[in-house]
This record gives sequence, C-alpha cells and structure tokens, in this order.
Amino acid sequence: MLLKVTILNIDSGGKPVIFLNDKDSDELNITASERVTVQTKKKITAIVNISTTIERGFLGVTDEVRKILSLKQNSKVNVEIAPFPKSLQFIRNKLSGKKLLYPEVREIVQDLVDGNLSENEISAFVTALHIDKIDLDEATSLSRAMVDTGKTLHINKKIIVDKHSIGGVPGDKTTLLVVPIIASEGFTIPKTSSRAITSVAGTADRAEVLMPVEFTINRMLQILKKSNGCIVWGGAIELAPADDIFVKTEFSLHIDPLLLPSIMSKKKAVGATHLTIDIPAGRGAKMKTTGEADLLARDIMELGRRLGIHTHCIVTFGEQPIGNTVGPALESKEALEVLMNQKQVPDLIDKACNISGSMFELLGKKNGYSLAKKILESGKAEQKMREIIKAQGGDSDILPEDIPIGKYSLVIRSEKSGQVLWMENRIIVEIGRAAGAPKDKGAGIIFNKKIGDSVEKGELLFTICAEKAHKLDRVKYILSTQLPLGVGKKSDMLIHTITESPIVERTFVIDR
Amino acid sequence: MLLKVTILNIDSGGKPVIFLNDKDSDELNITASERVTVQTKKKITAIVNISTTIERGFLGVTDEVRKILSLKQNSKVNVEIAPFPKSLQFIRNKLSGKKLLYPEVREIVQDLVDGNLSENEISAFVTALHIDKIDLDEATSLSRAMVDTGKTLHINKKIIVDKHSIGGVPGDKTTLLVVPIIASEGFTIPKTSSRAITSVAGTADRAEVLMPVEFTINRMLQILKKSNGCIVWGGAIELAPADDIFVKTEFSLHIDPLLLPSIMSKKKAVGATHLTIDIPAGRGAKMKTTGEADLLARDIMELGRRLGIHTHCIVTFGEQPIGNTVGPALESKEALEVLMNQKQVPDLIDKACNISGSMFELLGKKNGYSLAKKILESGKAEQKMREIIKAQGGDSDILPEDIPIGKYSLVIRSEKSGQVLWMENRIIVEIGRAAGAPKDKGAGIIFNKKIGDSVEKGELLFTICAEKAHKLDRVKYILSTQLPLGVGKKSDMLIHTITESPIVERTFVIDR
Repeated sequence: MLLKVTILNIDSGGKPVIFLNDKDSDELNITASERVTVQTKKKITAIVNISTTIERGFLGVTDEVRKILSLKQNSKVNVEIAPFPKSLQFIRNKLSGKKLLYPEVREIVQDLVDGNLSENEISAFVTALHIDKIDLDEATSLSRAMVDTGKTLHINKKIIVDKHSIGGVPGDKTTLLVVPIIASEGFTIPKTSSRAITSVAGTADRAEVLMPVEFTINRMLQILKKSNGCIVWGGAIELAPADDIFVKTEFSLHIDPLLLPSIMSKKKAVGATHLTIDIPAGRGAKMKTTGEADLLARDIMELGRRLGIHTHCIVTFGEQPIGNTVGPALESKEALEVLMNQKQVPDLIDKACNISGSMFELLGKKNGYSLAKKILESGKAEQKMREIIKAQGGDSDILPEDIPIGKYSLVIRSEKSGQVLWMENRIIVEIGRAAGAPKDKGAGIIFNKKIGDSVEKGELLFTICAEKAHKLDRVKYILSTQLPLGVGKKSDMLIHTITESPIVERTFVIDR
Repeated sequence: MLLKVTILNIDSGGKPVIFLNDKDSDELNITASERVTVQTKKKITAIVNISTTIERGFLGVTDEVRKILSLKQNSKVNVEIAPFPKSLQFIRNKLSGKKLLYPEVREIVQDLVDGNLSENEISAFVTALHIDKIDLDEATSLSRAMVDTGKTLHINKKIIVDKHSIGGVPGDKTTLLVVPIIASEGFTIPKTSSRAITSVAGTADRAEVLMPVEFTINRMLQILKKSNGCIVWGGAIELAPADDIFVKTEFSLHIDPLLLPSIMSKKKAVGATHLTIDIPAGRGAKMKTTGEADLLARDIMELGRRLGIHTHCIVTFGEQPIGNTVGPALESKEALEVLMNQKQVPDLIDKACNISGSMFELLGKKNGYSLAKKILESGKAEQKMREIIKAQGGDSDILPEDIPIGKYSLVIRSEKSGQVLWMENRIIVEIGRAAGAPKDKGAGIIFNKKIGDSVEKGELLFTICAEKAHKLDRVKYILSTQLPLGVGKKSDMLIHTITESPIVERTFVIDR
C-alpha cells in the first residue's frame, strides 16, 4: 500500500514505530502492535499504532523511522504487512513453558536490541522468565546473547579483575575503595558502574563527584593503560545494551528475573577473568535471608564457571546503610576521608577489605584481608585513587572539604532514649530521593546513629541535606508518617497490628 | 511543574498518554511508563513517554488528553508525579504468585477500563494469568469485575436464554440457525456476537450480510420486544469493555487466559439465566482432545453456577469446517438455504439441533433435538429469522440468490484419487483471509469435499471466491506451499519428517 508520510515529531524510545489510519490498517488486515515493512530505497520493520487522527492514505512516522529512511513530509513509502519475527514464536513457546535454546534466546535478544519487539511482547517474556524462573541453561544463553549483541572490551592482559554488588543497600560506596586497593597491587580492574534508577546513588553517580565518568570504549582503554583501574559509567559504552531495555520493563513491574544474566554479561563483555560478587543479605536487602543469598551465590558461581570467569561471592550484612552517609556527594566525601585515613568508618572499611581480600585470594595471594587493609592504611589506595581521578580527567588534588554538600538541612533528634533497634532501607531511599538525590548530588543523609547504638532523648539521630530548600518539605511530610530507624527497648516485641486487609508496599531496587 | 501544551495530533488507543522532554522527566524524578497527574481545572492521570523531540518546558499531549482537559496549543498545565495506582501493587502480587481477591481484581479491571495501566503492566498481568493458570475463584472475580465495569442489559423476563461457542472452527454459522429456532418457541435470546479478529468470519460479520448489527442497548431492547431474538455486534454496546482491552494483549501473545471470564461476563451482562456452550474439540480446534474439552466444560459449568447461570456444555467435532462454506456472505447464504429447507447440510443441521436441543432440555422440554429439527423443517425457524431481520432493519424478503459473492474465483481439483484424510483449519483460515475475508464479505471458500469423502483424480475439491482479483495471487502463493486438505490412502502413515530444529507455527484463534 502506497502512503504519504506525515512527520509526527515525537520519538518512540529507540523503537521504529508508525501510526496508521484505522481504515488503512483494516485494508492491510493488520491490528495494533503488529508489524509492517516501510520501504523507500531502504526497508525497515516498524511496529503499528492505529490512530483516527492520521488521515487515510497517510503514514505517521516517529523520529526513529524518519531518520533511518530519511523521510520528509509527504514522501511516498510502500507499507506492507510484515511477517511475525521468528523470535516472537520463541517468546510464545516460553509462555507455554518451553525451555529456550541458545539460538532462540539469541534471536529474541537481537530483535529486542533492533527494536523489533513491542512492549507487550517484551513484558510477557520478562514476566514468563520471572514466574517460570529461568534455569541456569537459559541464564547462560541470555548472558552470552547479551554479550554477543553489544560491544566488548579487548584488554591485552591475562588477568582482568572485576567486582559487583547485587545492591539494595543505601550508602554502599565500597567500590570507591576496592578499585584503588586492587589496582594499586598492579591488577587491571575495568570497573563499569550504573547510575541510580531506584536508589539514592549509583556508583557512577558517586564517582562523578570526583571525576568525569562518561567515556567511549577507546578512552576507557587509554585510562586503564595509565592507571590499571577505572570507575566509569557503563551506560555510555554500550556493553550489553539489551540489559537497558530489559531493565525498563522489569522496573515498571518490580521484578528482576534477568539479574544474573545482566550482571554476568557485563562482566564477560569487559573480559573479566576473576570476579567477586557481594551479596548483601537481611531484612531490607534484596536477599532477605542468608539461605537465599547462598542459593543465589551457587547460581552465580555456576554461571561464572560456564562463562569462563573465576567467581567468588561474599554475603554481607545488608540491614542498614554502609558507613554514615547516603547521597552521591556525601558518600564520595566519606570514601575519600577513609582513603586518606582521616576517618575510621569500621563497617565500610571491613566490607572493602573483605571484598578486596576475596579478590586477592582468588588471584592466589594469601591473607587477602590483611593485605587489603595494609594497602588502605599505607595510603597506597589513596595514591592510586588520585591516579585514577587524574586519568579520568578529574582534579587529583581534591580534598573532602572541596566536595559541595547541599546547604539546606533538617536535623532529627530522638524523642526517647533507648537503642536503635532497626533501620529501614526503603524509607532511607525514599527520604534521600525526596531530598533531591541522585539528581542533586549534594542531597543526602548523614547518620549519627546506627543499629545497636545507644540513644539519649534529644540526641541527634540523623541530618538530611538538600540543595533546594523546598525539597525538604517533601522530606518532612515523609517523616511525619514514617521513620527510617526505630529507637526502643530491646524487649519491645510488637512489629505491627493488622486490622484490615493490608496493601503491601515492598522494597524494590532494580539498580545493578 | 508548570508546562506548556503542545498538541501532537495522534491518539493513543483510548489511554491518556503524554510526552515529556527527558530533562523535565529527570527534574520530576520520573521515567517512561510511570504516571503523572496533569491538571488544569480538571485533573487526570496519564502515562509518561519520554521524548527528546518535545522541547523542554513543553508537554506533548495525545488526542485523548487534549479532549478530556480541553487543551489548546500553549495552554498551561501543572504536571506532577502521580502515586502508583493501587492496582499495580495487586498485579505485582499476582506476579509473585499470590491469589487475588475480588476487591483487588475489581481495582485492576477498573484501572484497565479507565486507561490507567500501561501496556507493560497489562501484558504482565495477562501473562501471569496464563502461566499460573487462573483458578475458579479468580475467574469468578474477573467475570464479576468485567460485568461491574461495563453496561448491562435489563430485560423484564424470568428466563433469558443464550448460547456461545468457544470457536476455532471455520464456517461455523450455527448461531444463525439456533437463535431463530429458540426464539420461535417464545424464548428470549439476546445474542451478542463478535466480529472476526483472527478468523475468516465472526457471527456478527455473517449476520451483517443479512441485516444491520450495530445498535445501542436501548435499540437492542426494542428489537427483542418485537422478535424475542436478535443477533447484534457486542462491540457496539459496551458490555464488559475490559474484555476488548484484554483481547488486544492476548492476541499479540497468542494466549487467552481470560477466555472463560470473557465469555461468562458477557452472558451475565445480558442477564442470561440459561446457557449452552459449544466446545469444538479435536485436531485443529482450540481443544485438541475431548479430555481437555471436558475439563473446560467442568470449569465453565462451575463458573456458571457461581454466577447464577444454568449452564450446559456440548462437545462437538471440530476438525473441519461446519457445512460447505467459509466466509461471511457464503456462510449467510448457506444458513439461509438451510433455514428455507432448500439445501441439506447434514453437519450444520446436526450441530444446530444439538445446541438448540440442549437449550430446550435446559429449559425443561423433552426431546430437545427432535423439537429443534421439527421447528427447522416446518419453516418456523425461517419465519422467525425473517422477523429478526425485519426488526433489525434488514430486508426480510431476502433470498439466497440476493446475497453477492465475490466474482473472482479459483478452482482447485485433486491431483490424485483417494479419500480426504484431513482438513487443516489453520490453512483454511489463512486462505480465507488472504482472499479478503472478513473485510470483503463476498470472499471465502466453498468446499465440495470434506473428511472421509472419496475423490477421483481431477475432481473438484474446493473453490475460492474473492471480490478483488489480485487477492487470489496471495491465495495461489499460499496454495503453492500448503494445502487445506489432504487426499490419500487410509493406510498412509507418515505425518512428517524432522531433520532440523523446527520452528513451530501454532493455530491461534482469539475470537470469542
């Protein structure tokens, strides 16, 4: 069917999408969400929207389609019904409980990256992986397919080290310590990190306070030549781009069946040979029990084995923030203070040394924990961090006091005396984001008390910082209904009373 | 955040959708598929698309949003992040395998009808219902919620009869016989039917050849007063509108977990008290075995009991078309010929008398089958059909030869002698649609041979009719690779040989 182009001036999130009049779609025997081919000299497949506001005989095109086919207003194009992509048949097989083989998974992931699958279809696939549970064969196929449909890093080294945390714990700035500790021993650690999606800060947001983090793959390789280590934003270098698309769907549904393929494909794409994965566990973490954490570790290690990556896991305490700060700038500042041995933050140091130590032992060194601690205390980690900051184009002389923190603050004191009995990661995140993080880098929370600490009535519990005064209003509102920590007596038994059918709000952290 | 409106001149399929610049969405701390409130004097919730082509400070609005809020180019609106609808939490619970209660299902269906759920979320819900299997409690809740969120028919009668077929068999014009048979005995049968989505003809398409089928609820009530029976298009009267939305998602995924709630909600919405459901079974039908059909019948009857509808099921042979014709006009013509006793079409007559007979017995009459047959043979059914045609505004004197059939045809003869061993509904549908049906009402297929018939070499097997000559080219192409029936010897054993990993094409009929 020959149609005239009408330019819509909207984009459709990367996917080629077109709009057809309902009469024309009838004529083509096609309904919404099906696919047509649109042909000029080139030919592409696009997903159909049906519209009554597009005139008969016209084809509404989004920016994606306009650009690929170099279309102008009133250009003529040939539009025909397209065969269903083969991958859709494979998705349907998955919906009927069939196990998918590598070529099938590869086809699905390729069509996903090429924008050939509709929201419906992606959502159904992700839901099926969630409900049916993906097994290790499928997780392996997905990891490989995600590597094969993206860019990869080629570092000319036999040993490439990497780390990752399953996430879910606010204030986890451990990577800012681990990367320089490992790199200062001469190992290559090409760390790519994400920005916050649902959390207060991602490692890329934290690192960006100290230095630029957006680079091409080639610039990343140059940085690594200089400093052995780097902390860059993974989103800029198109490793495993399928993951970004999956994440959008998972985020909206609060499910993350692709967690393992997502992590492992990115590690494989940078060429990692030795890897430590941190699995925070406990109330308020992604893994609620150590049993769950151990089972996840088992799967991660087997997946590592299949992908040729020597993998260790460590399970860590995840029921409260790491260190005393939450928020990009506050966290970078705290990390820098610890690197400079200006401050003792025992849980942060312990976690960093445990992860670094595990990596050292994976690499054949003995007493990894002590080695890591020694590197940190000797100032070698600080020195290496400054090399990395310089290589990435930041100010290598930066001091903690140079880091700007939001100047508006709200101080919360205890209304009673007792002990901090619990902290609630979900509410901490809600408050941190309401204060403006991760967008406002200077926004965040400073905790003076953590679980187990004794508290006097009137004593300072925590301070919220913001760059914009009005954002504290929203924080006050949240604090009027819920608190991020509880002070009480150790003998307090009641958790809560239920008198009507409850609506459950669950934590969900998609950042990975 | 105060934004200026930019009118996009596209509609978004009923859902309120807006487009935000990516910087503005960052500022609002919101990502694609989340929801915002858009406020002028009125306030609505809309789903967010993120666009780089919308300028900063502007809000791109679809026609739906423009109309509801009476917006003009450059109108000012206040846009804020909206809380997640509660129903989304219930969908997420379903994704984690939780059973849903009626108030939760009701909330989901209401948000669905109001356009508050994104494609992602609807798709995930439908997928979860498919994979987890909906149980009878949830099916009951869904049926009720679908009734409660739509219009209902109020007929002042104690007994209201209805029928339905699970579908999947081409050429099934049985309803055109059953409705007049039942109505001629004085029973009220307010039959609403669907148009074809994936099939060659829906009952509404068939009936439309004889008379108008699109009415308001009030007009439908007037028709019923005159003739006791009607055959109208259900889409026009907004009974259970949720189903139309679910169907779109199910169609694209080739799954139909909402089959039972869909059917039963529509029957409940017309106030049916006595109902017969036809379940075609066998190779090429929706139910592949009689065992499956029986299990479905069990669920349907229990659902009927819970909804207060006396329900019987009949399982019928579904491996080939009913009667000798497929396609809207050809089928109406055949039905009219049978009503007028001009033609004997044994399987069509047997099926119509079985369904009508079951309904009579459900209503307390004895020897239902013979009664139905007598009504048909006596011409009373024809007379009643002509009353219905008149009441619906058609020509009550219509004769079979008045019905126009596509004038282009393609005749297929047998290349060998033997017996018709199988017919393939999927290929019959593909050919019928390629010939132009259901849009071209005169397009379709006339079969001269059916399963078990003896065939001589060169004998006529079937004829394809089309309104447009070029549509037969596509039919020829299909016939060059696959046939809708097979002629062979009864001793032929081989079904097919598999030498490489096969891509399975399955039949899928969503029409219901």
